[in-house]
Amino acid sequence: MTPTASKRPLQLNDQGQLRHFLSIDGLPRELLTEILDTADSFLEVGARAVKKVPLLRGKTVCNVFFENSTRTRTTFELAAQRLSADVITLNVSTSSASKGESLLDTLRNLEAMAADMFVVRHGDSGAAHFIAEHVCPDVAIINGGDGRHAHPTQGMLDMLTIRRHKGDFSQLSVAIVGDILHSRVARSNMLALKALGCPDIRVIAPKTLLPVCVEQYGVRVFTDLAEGLRDVDVVIMLRLQKERMAGGLLPSEGEFYRLYGLTQQRLLLAKPDAIVMHPGPINRGVEIESAVADGVQSVILNQVTYGIAIRMAVMSMAMSGQNTQRQLNLEAGEQN
Amino acid sequence: MTPTASKRPLQLNDQGQLRHFLSIDGLPRELLTEILDTADSFLEVGARAVKKVPLLRGKTVCNVFFENSTRTRTTFELAAQRLSADVITLNVSTSSASKGESLLDTLRNLEAMAADMFVVRHGDSGAAHFIAEHVCPDVAIINGGDGRHAHPTQGMLDMLTIRRHKGDFSQLSVAIVGDILHSRVARSNMLALKALGCPDIRVIAPKTLLPVCVEQYGVRVFTDLAEGLRDVDVVIMLRLQKERMAGGLLPSEGEFYRLYGLTQQRLLLAKPDAIVMHPGPINRGVEIESAVADGVQSVILNQVTYGIAIRMAVMSMAMSGQNTQRQLNLEAGEQN
Amino acid sequence: MTPTASKRPLQLNDQGQLRHFLSIDGLPRELLTEILDTADSFLEVGARAVKKVPLLRGKTVCNVFFENSTRTRTTFELAAQRLSADVITLNVSTSSASKGESLLDTLRNLEAMAADMFVVRHGDSGAAHFIAEHVCPDVAIINGGDGRHAHPTQGMLDMLTIRRHKGDFSQLSVAIVGDILHSRVARSNMLALKALGCPDIRVIAPKTLLPVCVEQYGVRVFTDLAEGLRDVDVVIMLRLQKERMAGGLLPSEGEFYRLYGLTQQRLLLAKPDAIVMHPGPINRGVEIESAVADGVQSVILNQVTYGIAIRMAVMSMAMSGQNTQRQLNLEAGEQN
Repeated sequence: MTPTASKRPLQLNDQGQLRHFLSIDGLPRELLTEILDTADSFLEVGARAVKKVPLLRGKTVCNVFFENSTRTRTTFELAAQRLSADVITLNVSTSSASKGESLLDTLRNLEAMAADMFVVRHGDSGAAHFIAEHVCPDVAIINGGDGRHAHPTQGMLDMLTIRRHKGDFSQLSVAIVGDILHSRVARSNMLALKALGCPDIRVIAPKTLLPVCVEQYGVRVFTDLAEGLRDVDVVIMLRLQKERMAGGLLPSEGEFYRLYGLTQQRLLLAKPDAIVMHPGPINRGVEIESAVADGVQSVILNQVTYGIAIRMAVMSMAMSGQNTQRQLNLEAGEQN
Repeated sequence: MTPTASKRPLQLNDQGQLRHFLSIDGLPRELLTEILDTADSFLEVGARAVKKVPLLRGKTVCNVFFENSTRTRTTFELAAQRLSADVITLNVSTSSASKGESLLDTLRNLEAMAADMFVVRHGDSGAAHFIAEHVCPDVAIINGGDGRHAHPTQGMLDMLTIRRHKGDFSQLSVAIVGDILHSRVARSNMLALKALGCPDIRVIAPKTLLPVCVEQYGVRVFTDLAEGLRDVDVVIMLRLQKERMAGGLLPSEGEFYRLYGLTQQRLLLAKPDAIVMHPGPINRGVEIESAVADGVQSVILNQVTYGIAIRMAVMSMAMSGQNTQRQLNLEAGEQN
Repeated sequence: MTPTASKRPLQLNDQGQLRHFLSIDGLPRELLTEILDTADSFLEVGARAVKKVPLLRGKTVCNVFFENSTRTRTTFELAAQRLSADVITLNVSTSSASKGESLLDTLRNLEAMAADMFVVRHGDSGAAHFIAEHVCPDVAIINGGDGRHAHPTQGMLDMLTIRRHKGDFSQLSVAIVGDILHSRVARSNMLALKALGCPDIRVIAPKTLLPVCVEQYGVRVFTDLAEGLRDVDVVIMLRLQKERMAGGLLPSEGEFYRLYGLTQQRLLLAKPDAIVMHPGPINRGVEIESAVADGVQSVILNQVTYGIAIRMAVMSMAMSGQNTQRQLNLEAGEQN
C-alpha cells in the first residue's frame, strides 16, 4: 500500500461523487468534509423518537463478513436499518480450500440476487478494492475493515469525533499511540488527518510495532510516550492485539502498560482539555487505565454514537453515487 | 433475593408506570392487571391479517443474550417486529475472562448506539437489575430470564393463561410441580399469583428440589403429588433440567416420573376442568405424559400464543414509561 | 416416492390454488405455468429502485432449517423481505435424541406464535409433506429441500431459466448430467420438464449414480456423456457431492471429471446456442470447466436472479391460497 497512489477512478463516479467507500486514501478534503457534514445531520436522526429516514428504502444491504466482528456488524446493521434498508448478514468462512474462488463466486451470487450494497469485512488487505474493481462494480462496496490495510469508517468516525470536540483541524496536535504496525485504524487515521489539514500528527510506539517508512504518511515518530504526548489536543489509543505477545513483538502486557499505557498521570502531559479516544473494545489496564477510559476527557462512547452516523453517511452517499452513475451510463448510451 | 424487598423505584417511573420489566416482585396488583389487560388487546393483533402495530416504530430493540435460548429469543424478536421496532440480536459469550467488565462495556456501547430497549438474558441472578440500576437507566430493560432469580414475562404469560381460562384469581387453587429449587419460572409464578390474590398456591416437589424457606412466598408445600393435586384448578408443570441428575439431586428420570410425572391417571385427582400448563419445551415421559400434554386439558400451546402478547405488552408499556419519565425530567429541568 | 401419486389434496385448496409448495409432483401444467408467469412479474420488482411489494406485509415467515444452507436461506430471506414480510430464521439442530418429537413440538410452538408460513429445509425425505399433513395444515409450508426427495423451488427456477432463454418446452431436448441418484434437484427437474411438455429429457450419469427405475420419470438414460449431449438445447449440470467419493460410488474427482465433466470441447456436441445451467455452488474442475461456467452459454448467475423471483411467486401464491381456504371454511361454517 502506498499512500500516494490515487484510488479516485474506483471509489468515485464520473461526477466525483462517492460510489464505493474503500479507503480514505486518495479522497479529496472536500469529500471527507462532505462525509462529516452528512454524518452531523444523521446524528440528529439518532436522537429522534423515530430514528429512521427512508433514504435506502427497498434497497438490499448485504453484510458479508469473511472475518468475525460482532461490533462492526452491529453498527452497520443499525445504520442500514435506520436508513430503512433491508439487511442480510452472511458470515462466510474463509477456511475453505478455494478461498479466492469462493469469494468471487459468493459475491457474484449475491450480486445476482439484486443486492445494492455490500459491507465487506475481510482479513486480506485490498479485498474490498478487489471486489469493487473486479467483481461487482455496480454494487456499492463499503469497506468494513480489510487486513492491516484500512478501516475507513473507523477513520472517519474518529475525524467526526475530533471535529465535534476540537473544531478546526488546522490548529491541532494529534497523537496515535500503540500498535501502529498491525492497526488498520492507525493507517486510516493518518491519511484522514493529513487530508483534513492536521499539521502535527504523531505516532508513539515501540520500534517493533512501527511500520517501515511510517514517516511517509507525514507523521512524527516517537518511541517515548511522555515526549510524544506533550501538549497534544487529541490522544488516540489503539487496541493491543494480545496475540502479538506470542509472536515475540512484545515482552508482556505488564511491560507494555508500564511503557505505553495511558494513565491519568501521563495524560497530564497533554493539554488540559485534551480528549482521549479509543476504537474499542478497550483492554482496561493493558493500553489504558480505567480511570482514564471512564474519565471526563474520554470521548470513547461518543465515538460509538458517531460511528452509526458516519456509517449512515457513507452508505447513503455511495448509494446515491451509484444511482447517479447508472443514470449517467443510461444517458451516455442514449447519445450513442 | 427476598420477596418482600420493594423494587418500586427502579422498575417504575415517577408516575408509577412501568419503565423497566425486571421482576414481578414489588409490582402492585393494579400494574400486573394492566399488563394482562394490555396483552389481551394484543392477542387480537396476532389474529389479524396484518399483525403489526406501530407503537415501537423507529425504535431499536437489542436482544442481548448472555445465555443461549432460541425459544425466548424468537418470542421477543416476533413481539418486537409486531410492534414495528428494529431488532438487533447479540449472542454474547460469557466465557471471556473479564465477564463483569465485558457486560458493562458491551451494554454501554449499545447504549451509545442509541438503543431504546435491551432484552437481557443472563445466567447470573440479578443481572437485569444491575444493568437497569448501574448501567443504562434510560434504556428500557426487559428481563428475559436471569439465573435462578426471575423470568417475569414467563410468569405473566402464565397469569394471562390462567385468567383467560379460569377467570378470577380469588377463587383458585394452583399447584406448581417439579424442580422448584432451580426454576426462575416457579419464583415468578409464586410472586405473581400472590400479588393477584390467589388464595391457594401449592408447590409439589421432592425435598431435594425445594428452596429453603419456600413457605415465605405464602405457599403450601407438598412432597406427595397425589395429595398436592387434589381439587386444584390449575397444574403448572416445570421442566426438569436433566443436568440435575448428574448432581445427585435426583435418582433418575424414571424414578422422577414414577413419583412426580403428570399422568392421565393422576390428573383425575384435580378438578375435572383443571387446566395443565408447562413453560416448554416439554420432556415427554419425564415430567409429563404425552397424552396429558396433547390432551383436552392442556393449554401448553395457548401459553406460547399468550407469550407473544405479554412480551408486546411489557415492551410497549416500558417504552412508554421511559418516554414519560424523559418528559418529566425535561419539565423539571425547565422549572429549575 | 412414486412420481405418479397425486399430492393434489394436500398442496392445493378447494379451488385448486396453491396453499403449500411441497413438490412439483402432482401439480398440473396450468399451475406450474402460473408460477412461472407470477415469477416473471416479480423479476421486474428486483430491477426497480424500491424492490418491495406489500403482498406479505404484517405476515410472519419462519425459516426453519433443520439442515444448514446459507445460500437457500439467504434467497428465501430476501424473497420474504421483498414481499414485506417479517422474517424469523431458526437453525434447528437435528442431532438431538428425540428428533421426530422435537420437529413436531418445535413447529407447533412456532404455529402458536402465529406464524403464517414455514420455509422448511430438512434432511429427511417427506419432512415438508409430513408437516403440512400432520402438523400445521393452516400454515403455508414451503419445501426448501427435503432429503433426496425434492427441491421444488430449485426445479421451478430451472424451468423459469429454460423458458426465458429457450421459450416453448415442447420443442426442447434437455440433458441432466451427474449424480442423479442423490440429487433432489434432478427429481424436481424431471417432474417439472415432464409436466411442462418437454419431449426429450435425458439423464447422463455413471450406473452407480442412477436411481433404480429412473425410466419411470419418462426420461432417456445415457451413461456416455458425448452420446447424451448430442444436439441438446439445455445442459443441466448437477453438483457433485464430494462425500460420495468416500462411499465408493465414485473412483475419484479426477476420474469423474475425465468422464462426465462439462468441458468447452464437449459442449460443442450440444446445439450451438445451448445453455448451460448449474444449481450452484459449482465445483470448478470437478463437474464443470471454469471456461464453461463463466462462458457465454452459461446462465448460472441468471438462475440465481430467477430464484428470488420464483421464491417470491410461490410464497405469495401459497399465502393467497391459504387465505382463500380460510375464507371458504368460514363461509362453509356459516351455512351449517
